[in-house]
Amino acid sequence: MPKLIKQRSKKAGLAPGTLVHIGEKKTEAPKITIMNYDEVHFQEKEMKTIEECFIFKDHPAVTWINIDGLHQVEILGKLGDCYGLHPLVLEDILNTDQRPKMEDYGEYVYIVLRSLEVNGSSNEIGSEQISLILGPNFVFSFQEKEGDTFCPIRERIRNDKGRIRKMGADYLAYALLDSTIDNYFIIFEKLGDKIEFLEDKLINQPTPETLQTIHGLKKEMIFLRKAVWPLREVVGSLERGESSLIQTSTRVYLRDLYDHTIQVIDTIETFRDMVSGMLDIYLSSVSNRLNVVMKVLTIIATIFMPLTFIAGIYGMNFKYMPELEWRWGYPVIWFILVFIGGSMLIYFKRKKWL
Amino acid sequence: MPKLIKQRSKKAGLAPGTLVHIGEKKTEAPKITIMNYDEVHFQEKEMKTIEECFIFKDHPAVTWINIDGLHQVEILGKLGDCYGLHPLVLEDILNTDQRPKMEDYGEYVYIVLRSLEVNGSSNEIGSEQISLILGPNFVFSFQEKEGDTFCPIRERIRNDKGRIRKMGADYLAYALLDSTIDNYFIIFEKLGDKIEFLEDKLINQPTPETLQTIHGLKKEMIFLRKAVWPLREVVGSLERGESSLIQTSTRVYLRDLYDHTIQVIDTIETFRDMVSGMLDIYLSSVSNRLNVVMKVLTIIATIFMPLTFIAGIYGMNFKYMPELEWRWGYPVIWFILVFIGGSMLIYFKRKKWL
Amino acid sequence: MPKLIKQRSKKAGLAPGTLVHIGEKKTEAPKITIMNYDEVHFQEKEMKTIEECFIFKDHPAVTWINIDGLHQVEILGKLGDCYGLHPLVLEDILNTDQRPKMEDYGEYVYIVLRSLEVNGSSNEIGSEQISLILGPNFVFSFQEKEGDTFCPIRERIRNDKGRIRKMGADYLAYALLDSTIDNYFIIFEKLGDKIEFLEDKLINQPTPETLQTIHGLKKEMIFLRKAVWPLREVVGSLERGESSLIQTSTRVYLRDLYDHTIQVIDTIETFRDMVSGMLDIYLSSVSNRLNVVMKVLTIIATIFMPLTFIAGIYGMNFKYMPELEWRWGYPVIWFILVFIGGSMLIYFKRKKWL
Amino acid sequence: MPKLIKQRSKKAGLAPGTLVHIGEKKTEAPKITIMNYDEVHFQEKEMKTIEECFIFKDHPAVTWINIDGLHQVEILGKLGDCYGLHPLVLEDILNTDQRPKMEDYGEYVYIVLRSLEVNGSSNEIGSEQISLILGPNFVFSFQEKEGDTFCPIRERIRNDKGRIRKMGADYLAYALLDSTIDNYFIIFEKLGDKIEFLEDKLINQPTPETLQTIHGLKKEMIFLRKAVWPLREVVGSLERGESSLIQTSTRVYLRDLYDHTIQVIDTIETFRDMVSGMLDIYLSSVSNRLNVVMKVLTIIATIFMPLTFIAGIYGMNFKYMPELEWRWGYPVIWFILVFIGGSMLIYFKRKKWL
Amino acid sequence: MPKLIKQRSKKAGLAPGTLVHIGEKKTEAPKITIMNYDEVHFQEKEMKTIEECFIFKDHPAVTWINIDGLHQVEILGKLGDCYGLHPLVLEDILNTDQRPKMEDYGEYVYIVLRSLEVNGSSNEIGSEQISLILGPNFVFSFQEKEGDTFCPIRERIRNDKGRIRKMGADYLAYALLDSTIDNYFIIFEKLGDKIEFLEDKLINQPTPETLQTIHGLKKEMIFLRKAVWPLREVVGSLERGESSLIQTSTRVYLRDLYDHTIQVIDTIETFRDMVSGMLDIYLSSVSNRLNVVMKVLTIIATIFMPLTFIAGIYGMNFKYMPELEWRWGYPVIWFILVFIGGSMLIYFKRKKWL
Repeated sequence: MPKLIKQRSKKAGLAPGTLVHIGEKKTEAPKITIMNYDEVHFQEKEMKTIEECFIFKDHPAVTWINIDGLHQVEILGKLGDCYGLHPLVLEDILNTDQRPKMEDYGEYVYIVLRSLEVNGSSNEIGSEQISLILGPNFVFSFQEKEGDTFCPIRERIRNDKGRIRKMGADYLAYALLDSTIDNYFIIFEKLGDKIEFLEDKLINQPTPETLQTIHGLKKEMIFLRKAVWPLREVVGSLERGESSLIQTSTRVYLRDLYDHTIQVIDTIETFRDMVSGMLDIYLSSVSNRLNVVMKVLTIIATIFMPLTFIAGIYGMNFKYMPELEWRWGYPVIWFILVFIGGSMLIYFKRKKWL
Repeated sequence: MPKLIKQRSKKAGLAPGTLVHIGEKKTEAPKITIMNYDEVHFQEKEMKTIEECFIFKDHPAVTWINIDGLHQVEILGKLGDCYGLHPLVLEDILNTDQRPKMEDYGEYVYIVLRSLEVNGSSNEIGSEQISLILGPNFVFSFQEKEGDTFCPIRERIRNDKGRIRKMGADYLAYALLDSTIDNYFIIFEKLGDKIEFLEDKLINQPTPETLQTIHGLKKEMIFLRKAVWPLREVVGSLERGESSLIQTSTRVYLRDLYDHTIQVIDTIETFRDMVSGMLDIYLSSVSNRLNVVMKVLTIIATIFMPLTFIAGIYGMNFKYMPELEWRWGYPVIWFILVFIGGSMLIYFKRKKWL
Repeated sequence: MPKLIKQRSKKAGLAPGTLVHIGEKKTEAPKITIMNYDEVHFQEKEMKTIEECFIFKDHPAVTWINIDGLHQVEILGKLGDCYGLHPLVLEDILNTDQRPKMEDYGEYVYIVLRSLEVNGSSNEIGSEQISLILGPNFVFSFQEKEGDTFCPIRERIRNDKGRIRKMGADYLAYALLDSTIDNYFIIFEKLGDKIEFLEDKLINQPTPETLQTIHGLKKEMIFLRKAVWPLREVVGSLERGESSLIQTSTRVYLRDLYDHTIQVIDTIETFRDMVSGMLDIYLSSVSNRLNVVMKVLTIIATIFMPLTFIAGIYGMNFKYMPELEWRWGYPVIWFILVFIGGSMLIYFKRKKWL
Repeated sequence: MPKLIKQRSKKAGLAPGTLVHIGEKKTEAPKITIMNYDEVHFQEKEMKTIEECFIFKDHPAVTWINIDGLHQVEILGKLGDCYGLHPLVLEDILNTDQRPKMEDYGEYVYIVLRSLEVNGSSNEIGSEQISLILGPNFVFSFQEKEGDTFCPIRERIRNDKGRIRKMGADYLAYALLDSTIDNYFIIFEKLGDKIEFLEDKLINQPTPETLQTIHGLKKEMIFLRKAVWPLREVVGSLERGESSLIQTSTRVYLRDLYDHTIQVIDTIETFRDMVSGMLDIYLSSVSNRLNVVMKVLTIIATIFMPLTFIAGIYGMNFKYMPELEWRWGYPVIWFILVFIGGSMLIYFKRKKWL
Repeated sequence: MPKLIKQRSKKAGLAPGTLVHIGEKKTEAPKITIMNYDEVHFQEKEMKTIEECFIFKDHPAVTWINIDGLHQVEILGKLGDCYGLHPLVLEDILNTDQRPKMEDYGEYVYIVLRSLEVNGSSNEIGSEQISLILGPNFVFSFQEKEGDTFCPIRERIRNDKGRIRKMGADYLAYALLDSTIDNYFIIFEKLGDKIEFLEDKLINQPTPETLQTIHGLKKEMIFLRKAVWPLREVVGSLERGESSLIQTSTRVYLRDLYDHTIQVIDTIETFRDMVSGMLDIYLSSVSNRLNVVMKVLTIIATIFMPLTFIAGIYGMNFKYMPELEWRWGYPVIWFILVFIGGSMLIYFKRKKWL
């Protein structure tokens, strides 16, 4: 489980637009890769410094600069200066606890969303901030650390598969968004399996640990909702084509993406409903087991208390107790004891306690 | 209960519009049937290949192509090429975990919804995706497997019953939607019976299994809601006549359909309220029974513990215990024991514990 | 409690507009009454056949045809033919599980709502569908069985009381709606009494039956909400004067009716809040009583277990137990037992368990 | 606690606009007071009959007629005739279970709201209906019984304090509303104290009575919400200046009033949240105490049951029981008993049960 | 925890606009500081009387007057007279229980919000009202007591850091808002730590005190929500530029501020969800522990009750009890007792109670 809230306090009091990286340093050295392509031409390079990218600024083909690792603040500063990005945008890229949003700055659109991943060892869901800047002929993407979410898109550009090389920067931005959101479904499949497994266990053999797992799932749901709900607004406003950078031909793809987003939200809500239903079941089954335990106790006590009392009676040392002298006293008492015990058992059988 | 989430992961990373069938293969070979009719003429055929259908493309009469079974992806590809369907539409037809939606592509409208069915053996509710494409003179319908939801409509076309042969493709699309949604009520009747039966049992003789049935019902409600809620939006936007393919005369029927949809949603909400009320009742009655058990235990313990103590007293072996020597000691003790036991019983009667 | 869902299945597959009566046959023979009135003239008649009513079709005075009993489908068919009613309207009149709605067909307005009644013997709330058709100079009203909801209005027309004879058909429709909704308040008074009585009982002497009564009330609330909530929309759209059949002078009355509707909804929500609060109280008081029971058990066990143990000690048969030989052993033991028991009692008094 | 629902049934079936007073007769004889003022002139009088007021009808100065007590229906009738008030307005003034609303009749505005008061003896919150009619140069106010809510305003008019004498009838209406709503805060302070006192008690010493107090508070919240929520709409539509009777200079005051209304609603919601949180705490602390009780029982039983068993063993009368003959048998047994009891205690200490 | 509701009652009945300070006197003497700056010039002063400030009234540079401490009502009165502030604004500044709001008076904008602080000793969250008045060339800020929230901004103005000296009064107002809201995140970090610490404790070792801490957190959430939710509306309407005092260049900063506000609200909602989840966990774990206790009791009773009964049997004093005479009777009985006890233990092991 990631921290509930990132440490923003080191930013408090600074002037807005001051560039400070908030978040852990997740990668050693930032990795800058550039792709420049149009229908006929394609170029891919890994850059040492950000300045090398600036030659593509006025190139008519689509330029995609991807930066993995955000802790070298000056890279962003230079990029911002060259392309005229607003300091607040750069600040938001560096503050890696943004909620998904889309901001239209006229000459470019800034989109931020979160990619999800399952942490290998602890099996917990984590998230990483992905920032996109879409301009007329460029897309910049920023990731906290190197990831493989964008690999299939690189492949499609390299091999000229689908319509990606034929279309503009807006389609590339769509493809990046689509790839990130498609990735959610993989996480959700795993989560769905986890929930169904837990449900089986809940019915067959609930333990206090089950409770903690449910609680953990609930927290993951809160976390996921926070990451996913605002996406609806983001993709929705892209689709409505509020920005002139989005061409009409791309809008039908964004509508499809919007559908996926709704489906993502739907799935989370379903999960939430399921998990909170599980808590009810857990509580009910705990009550049920308490009932079972109490019935056992009551049956035992109800049978043996009267019997022990009778045995106690004939353990008294009164001088004149005629029964004690009777020849058949002892067998008769045994008969009485067995009779009382037996009738109790029959009574409980009838009451369905046994 | 169907899986919470279908395996979309095999699609992750593919270019949008790539045709891959998501879902189980529910039928052997896809079955293609075609109906071509207007007020005077009627023709019905089962086709071997999809190409045979293309001759009706520019035929002025209404053409209805129904395809049962989606796993032969190339059929859809060819149909899409011939009628100029957008690749994203074809992709959505194949991804059988769509939420109900309506998309207007100008020349045709794409509608997707879910038909419900009760699985015979397990008595569980399942769903199947139904896709409709409505064009100026054609309707295509796609089902995952052969079903009998559309049979009454085929009958009505064959026998020229009602106004279906007199009206256009939009009325046919309406009839297909109406028939699917009418079918929901049959499912709901069964569900209502199940709920009322459960409620009776809950009051008369709740068992831990009742809890599981309630939980199962809750999950079915989540599942149904997901399938049904978006319908409101779908039918609503058809009724508002946002597409030019819907003629004014059909709108009054769509308004009726909208009413049915609202009723469907209403019913689901009623069911949900009932089922969640049942959980409360279950928990309360478990508590009540615990109370009953505890009272029995307490009564028994409260009566026999003092008695056993008294018997224990006179089982002590002190040399000088005057009572033991008394002639009437033993009967007196019996009298005391009976008196104590009796007053306890009266006390509990008064406290209404008995 | 009425059935949750009426059997619509016999309608599934039929063409829309096919007339089939859904609901129980609540009356023997349908009763057709007609009133024809204006400011100066008044005529009232009970008709044998519906055809007799048709002579009033073009009469300028207001014509009110009331039909009690819907199972003779052909009556409606003829009326529909004569006045040009849409088949879907006739279908909705016969399907007596409609949710309240208002549909404007231009030449006439179709309104459907539910009247409530308390079933005499079982004290349960039932509902009946009331359909109104408002035309330029006529109002048709359809009830499932003969009722007395409309009697005061008939009286007012007969005796020319108030402004009803001076105003048009729209005012008559308003009066019928008003009378039906005013009737709700009578039901609500009874329901309010029931709730307050239950609340008293809940606090003074809750039993498992109380739980079932609460559950029954909850279900009645679900049922009432379903019948009442949509009314807001119905009366609201009448009041906004969306139909040209509603004259401006009538609108101020409809605004008043709208207020009543809001009040009806408000009252139901208040009832719902009260009833769900009662369940919490019930559960809490069950827990409280469990606590009381457990305290009694614990006190008894805590006092007598140590005492019985001590008595058991001196019941042992060891040869060398000096205490047994002591002259004052037995009284000393009694003193010890009383002392232990007494201190326990004081301890529990201090802990406020007694 | 006032009745949930007032008896409207005596009105059912009457023509709309029939004047019947619904509510208790709260005052002996209605009291009619009139104030007539402008910047320079001021007149105040108590009238015997309503007719005496009519001379001020066309007086240019502001006329404020206040009527305390509504059971003399004919007073209202005459006033309505003189000033041309709609019968439905008069009806609503008399039906004292209105929800707050504002109705614009063009020539006058009808406002109804509820004033709150704490019943002195039972400490319960009651409410009274206050109706205002604002005309171009007059304000009528109707109260169920004589109250002192409006006294400060009378003082301000008499002493020409603030701007009230300089402004028109709309400002007077604002002042009356403001004074009524300001009064809520006094009620809320008392309620807040009650809640905080209860909270303290809940934590320190909860009793079953606490539960009933919480339940009572919950009901008061339901009651208050019903009285207060609709105010937002009422004041909001006055502030938006939908009526031409409200001058622009008064609007800034109405905006302030709107703020107060929001604050009133906010406070109620805060109270509601607090009270429903208290029920959770109550339930949890009941469970906690049950746990404590059960632990005591378990500790006692776990310690003394084995000890009593051992004592029972050596109380058996077998002929050949070597331990009974041993010289140190009895002390050894005592040692064993103390050892077992002691280890149990240590065990429970470790498990933190003690 | 601050009082739920401030004592407004001393204001009830006063004319609107009467200046009375509501709230505690949090500082000795009000402190008036003034800053006057533009791009080239800068002046800072602490004033004795408010009149000294009035010379800056028509100064073209930005004037920022900050007043700490509100109990000297006449200061506000004079300031209001000089700058033409509406009496209602002055009243709202003095009533320190305002909910955040923004009011546009044309020539100036009045903004009120709350700053949060953690009380050092009790670790509780308190709040203080901050009022801002933004005019064309001035900003007035009012705090209840001297705080350090605005220090960084003073520093930035003094040292001409960032763009603050280059921009107008609207940017200064933005900076003050931003600084207050940024401060929330520091509070939230502490709160987040508290919640996570509590969660750990809840799982490892819940005590009744944990319950009270959860309850306290819940109340803090209610309090925070009240302070924070309305901010969204406030900053939103500033950002939409509804006031002409906000320049377009400042709007992009206000959009950023709006994002922060949404994030603040999001965080509070997350906290709320977490805290209410914790109550469920607490209740479940209490139930679980009850189960554990009951199992121990049941195991002990189930093992020792039958054993004690058997020992009781052979403690009876019947004359003819053959077993007592047997040579191996005593060892056989021991064997039987051990056997019964052992099988019980095995039985409970199998049932997983041990």
